[in-house]
Amino acid sequence: MAIRFRSSFRLLSRHASLRAQTLNRTATLGARACISTSSPTHFAVAPHGEIEFTADKFPHMKRNSAFKKLSDEDIAYFRTILAPSGITQDKEDLQVFNSDWLRKYRGQSKLVLKPASTEQVSKILRYCHDNKLAVVPQGGNTGLVGGGVPVFDEIVVSMANMNSVRSFDKVSGALVCDAGSILEVLDKYLEERGYIMPLDLGAKGSCHIGGNVSTNAGGLRLLRYGSLHGTVLGLEVVLPDGTILDNLSTLRKDNTGYDLKQLFIGSEGTLGIVTGVSILAPKRSKAINVALLGLNTFDQVQSAFKRSKDELCEILSAFEFWDQAAIKLVKEHLVAGANDPLESEHRFYVLIETSGSNKEHDDEKLNQYLEGLLTDDVVQDGVVAQDATQIQKLWAIREGIPEACSKAGAVYKYDISMPVPVLYQAVEDMQDYLTKNGAFGEGKLFSSVIGYGHVGDGNLHLNVAASDYSPEAVDLMEPYVFEWTAKHAGSISAEHGLGVSKNNHLHYSKSPSMIHLMKRFKSLIDPQGIMNPYKYLPDN
Amino acid sequence: MAIRFRSSFRLLSRHASLRAQTLNRTATLGARACISTSSPTHFAVAPHGEIEFTADKFPHMKRNSAFKKLSDEDIAYFRTILAPSGITQDKEDLQVFNSDWLRKYRGQSKLVLKPASTEQVSKILRYCHDNKLAVVPQGGNTGLVGGGVPVFDEIVVSMANMNSVRSFDKVSGALVCDAGSILEVLDKYLEERGYIMPLDLGAKGSCHIGGNVSTNAGGLRLLRYGSLHGTVLGLEVVLPDGTILDNLSTLRKDNTGYDLKQLFIGSEGTLGIVTGVSILAPKRSKAINVALLGLNTFDQVQSAFKRSKDELCEILSAFEFWDQAAIKLVKEHLVAGANDPLESEHRFYVLIETSGSNKEHDDEKLNQYLEGLLTDDVVQDGVVAQDATQIQKLWAIREGIPEACSKAGAVYKYDISMPVPVLYQAVEDMQDYLTKNGAFGEGKLFSSVIGYGHVGDGNLHLNVAASDYSPEAVDLMEPYVFEWTAKHAGSISAEHGLGVSKNNHLHYSKSPSMIHLMKRFKSLIDPQGIMNPYKYLPDN
Repeated sequence: MAIRFRSSFRLLSRHASLRAQTLNRTATLGARACISTSSPTHFAVAPHGEIEFTADKFPHMKRNSAFKKLSDEDIAYFRTILAPSGITQDKEDLQVFNSDWLRKYRGQSKLVLKPASTEQVSKILRYCHDNKLAVVPQGGNTGLVGGGVPVFDEIVVSMANMNSVRSFDKVSGALVCDAGSILEVLDKYLEERGYIMPLDLGAKGSCHIGGNVSTNAGGLRLLRYGSLHGTVLGLEVVLPDGTILDNLSTLRKDNTGYDLKQLFIGSEGTLGIVTGVSILAPKRSKAINVALLGLNTFDQVQSAFKRSKDELCEILSAFEFWDQAAIKLVKEHLVAGANDPLESEHRFYVLIETSGSNKEHDDEKLNQYLEGLLTDDVVQDGVVAQDATQIQKLWAIREGIPEACSKAGAVYKYDISMPVPVLYQAVEDMQDYLTKNGAFGEGKLFSSVIGYGHVGDGNLHLNVAASDYSPEAVDLMEPYVFEWTAKHAGSISAEHGLGVSKNNHLHYSKSPSMIHLMKRFKSLIDPQGIMNPYKYLPDN
Repeated sequence: MAIRFRSSFRLLSRHASLRAQTLNRTATLGARACISTSSPTHFAVAPHGEIEFTADKFPHMKRNSAFKKLSDEDIAYFRTILAPSGITQDKEDLQVFNSDWLRKYRGQSKLVLKPASTEQVSKILRYCHDNKLAVVPQGGNTGLVGGGVPVFDEIVVSMANMNSVRSFDKVSGALVCDAGSILEVLDKYLEERGYIMPLDLGAKGSCHIGGNVSTNAGGLRLLRYGSLHGTVLGLEVVLPDGTILDNLSTLRKDNTGYDLKQLFIGSEGTLGIVTGVSILAPKRSKAINVALLGLNTFDQVQSAFKRSKDELCEILSAFEFWDQAAIKLVKEHLVAGANDPLESEHRFYVLIETSGSNKEHDDEKLNQYLEGLLTDDVVQDGVVAQDATQIQKLWAIREGIPEACSKAGAVYKYDISMPVPVLYQAVEDMQDYLTKNGAFGEGKLFSSVIGYGHVGDGNLHLNVAASDYSPEAVDLMEPYVFEWTAKHAGSISAEHGLGVSKNNHLHYSKSPSMIHLMKRFKSLIDPQGIMNPYKYLPDN
């Protein structure tokens, strides 16, 4: 099915005036909630053969012998607190909990527990704490760094059975829900009430809000609504010893003591299990516009970004970019719904979304902005979606990139942030570096270096496609990529987290005194070290 | 000087159509930065006689005998690390550091240190830690809960000499500065560069950004730009043992380990001293509108608020309210620049500010919104500022309320947050309660109960004017007001903090397990308990 855009907006036709009547192209944001083409569950069954055990892949990792091995008595105890459906021991059934959708990590857990209440989570953790049984909390298992899957025989505590909305305040927009609620389900719930979740990401059809909080997910709306550190109003957390921290405040302001919830946002399940989330939902915008632009240089991308901050300002809700390598992969792997509507290929693509309360005003602002870019030769081509379907289709390109990358074979995903001016240099330098080392090109170890991400947040997703996952590939790219990032005052994990893949690289982004204090907090809250071991913090 | 508004906008004249040409009333936001009528420094010299010592006012407070008393050797050591001007021992000079502008708290410090660098702060704290000398970090000393002044003989570490901008990134808006930088100075610095500080409060002419961070100040822009937990990108903090936590990130996204900085936001100097702040400044809006409305009931205030979220949405930047008792005080005490432009007095007042990138669009949105309120009898009267001066004058009323209250005599200030529907009930219930107890009215202990605050944040400033500060007055109102707040699922401190006045009431807003964990964090980071003792956390 071809996407049709009004040809009068094709920016290549520079003599066509951009008349207001051609700009009747808004749609409700609700339309976007239907997209889940890039939902990770689509890839879990990809026919790549057996996944290597994490423990084999990282031979330096050793099972902590202080942890107890699961016994029949343990199972018997869990049977006294959970319904039969809350306990999974079947080898086949365990597979999906033991591995990630990128097929990079595989654990050896023998037991998955699915508590149905905060009290059950508390009982599970208290027992594990008392008996030194290691635990991995798991949400929608859509993570990219192996944080939510076991390494050895840790017990998986899946939050899938805790997925109710607890309350919603129509005046303030405060939503309180179970941690296992699926992001997209929550967004639909809010849509019916005129509100929107302040975060959105490709995995929305599978990921849990508790997992989002635990990894401090960024995503597509951060530019507009800010990070979870600002939008989360309260959390209910079960500490490793079973203590329930009941801090599900729905207040926008509450200066009563240390803001403990903040420590659990982004702690990747190493300090306890988030069981409930209170989050401030903004009003859903009545008008949405999405434009796709083709540009020649990353300088032009930056210029378009700077001008969007000035001219679109309060209605700007996304400023995403990707490169030619990314669009090639999307086309090659025919990602569902993701067709490039531009006439020719460009070195860079920018997707701009505006959302506001007045369609005519937004149209006028966007029109002026785009006209300015055209006049000043900042963009070479572009289209503006005319309706909700076209909005979906433009977003499908951006959201289809991770899927396209994964279909390319093995893909190494780096998620780094840095000052915007050097954002794309990271991609070019990586390709140069691999070429110089004779590892890039046809028949070589690496076939493609892809750059895309959130320009507005200084966040680059640097993906390197390889023929296969191998220690040689990793040794070539790491620590090179982390050193590059540190040299450019960046972060080695912008929004994906540390998990099992970056814990020992933390020093590239954090000082010894910071890491030391983190370890002291970890010891204070989880003295037995049972929560999500072998991850997050450096081994030594 | 009378404020003149175009009469065509007077909403009482319901037949006058609100034509677009009457709405030429935008001005740059910069204009507002000039207002500092309510700067606390104006009141510090109010002729109220000598302030009672905090230790006498709260006789249950005892000096912790584990703390060392200041000796000549200590002074000699500090002389080796600080310039002579960085050490204050003069009794007269000490006064201003020993007391607060509300004249409610007074300490007995014999020494004020003014470090000029992070290294000096580190040396001071390490020495105090090693020698068990208690310390009070102090910013602009504009706090309302006694958090920044000593109780006994703690050493005051004033941040006044650390006030430089360290860097500013024009692309991202990331500002890095010393903790002693004055909020208004930073806002002016940013104004020249097209940006704005994401927070604003009445004390802006005196308060330090480090103090703002340490108290998690809310203020007038929180509705639009969110809390400091979202806008602060990084902090440099000196821990009690002298360790420097160098986490001055300028990245919008950085998921590398526990977000330690969050713990210091709102910790009121009990965990260390904030020496540097990195904060994300939004683009300064090109167009500002301010309207003042008169309303009959708090239901109408709520209705106007709900509609503003829908209709002004992304351009809404403030929604403040006050009651008739507040305007009476402002008029009575002739607060500079604060003249009520409405024809008659109203039970409720609302100040609405919009800020956006396109003046015509904003005018149209506000016009439609106000017309709707008028048509539906939601408001009784109103004016819209026509220029920057008028904008200032409208804001001067709102910002003059604290000053007017302080001139009324003794004023007890409660800063509570709760669901918006019960916001004003707190005021009514308090007045009823005091009346029933025979303590309210002419010749009685209490003369006035005033309500004002940030409707958009569910944050009420409940002020009770009394003839004098007295234990009887406190005993009558407390714990009544805290119990009321807890019963309505509110917070006993929305944005002012706990300080010395609310630490023992923390249990009204936080559970025992939360308080227990807070105390464990405190012990971990400040095992000697030297940082800002006698405050914040409950005594037992």
